[in-house]
Amino acid sequence: MIIGVVRSAHTEPADTPVQSGLNPDEAAVIEMDEQYVDGLDGLAEVDFAWLLTWLERPGDRHETVALRQVPYLLSTRPRKLGIFATRGPRRVNPIGLSLIRVLGVVGSTVRFTGVDVVDGTPVIDVKPYVTAFDRPPITPRCGWFDHVALPMGATPASLERRPS
Amino acid sequence: MIIGVVRSAHTEPADTPVQSGLNPDEAAVIEMDEQYVDGLDGLAEVDFAWLLTWLERPGDRHETVALRQVPYLLSTRPRKLGIFATRGPRRVNPIGLSLIRVLGVVGSTVRFTGVDVVDGTPVIDVKPYVTAFDRPPITPRCGWFDHVALPMGATPASLERRPS
Repeated sequence: MIIGVVRSAHTEPADTPVQSGLNPDEAAVIEMDEQYVDGLDGLAEVDFAWLLTWLERPGDRHETVALRQVPYLLSTRPRKLGIFATRGPRRVNPIGLSLIRVLGVVGSTVRFTGVDVVDGTPVIDVKPYVTAFDRPPITPRCGWFDHVALPMGATPASLERRPS
Repeated sequence: MIIGVVRSAHTEPADTPVQSGLNPDEAAVIEMDEQYVDGLDGLAEVDFAWLLTWLERPGDRHETVALRQVPYLLSTRPRKLGIFATRGPRRVNPIGLSLIRVLGVVGSTVRFTGVDVVDGTPVIDVKPYVTAFDRPPITPRCGWFDHVALPMGATPASLERRPS
């Protein structure tokens, strides 16, 4: 069930930052449906939150999603990885998980920085970031992510243009 | 779409730890549907992952979910909070987000520690934990979570039994 939408300056997925962590300073807003405004009570007291979005676009056919894909971040040195070892948007269930910084909540609108989705992206949940729950107790291995450049502001288009 | 199930030692939500971070050492497994086994390629190389689950139980009527609720962790000093400022399971979209430690992947089975769901809980996505994406650059305020005890192993039942 869609509970709101993101309003961002991005319209094309190819030109939209691939991760909130690589675009931490750009602002956007969540416009929650008015009927859920009471559910935001207390959210302004947290600095960070998880934004869960539904990344399927009209015309996408997720029943045909490839289970092994080359992530955008590996586009210049292609290696296929299982989708459950990637953060890419083309998933069996196309759920996006973005760590956003909460700037403020006014009525049913949540202002935040760290946008990585296009304008109009459906919101399916918002949860507070809780350090005790969400931070590993060690510095973890992050698999292939530990061995690639993670350029700030990276978009699918910019990653494809990089020299290999 | 359900892509697998969690097999855990817990059958009653009331006796199941409320958060993976408060139950980091107990093991369980994800049994992915065989058809998705290729999607797990590379997951064994990460230490932590996000387990996204569907928390609705037969008979739940999520259309009547209260938008303000007293979290389990506040059961002895009740304060109602908006559901989007809590991590509770009774949500508009009952999606669970658990940080799990990946112990190993064999075929379509993922062994992990940090279980906070009952046996048979449907899995809807698995994503690698990536420090660069998932860790705030500061020590964040976590709202009401900063002012409550977060007892290891806490369950809904144990939290209700605490002296206030």
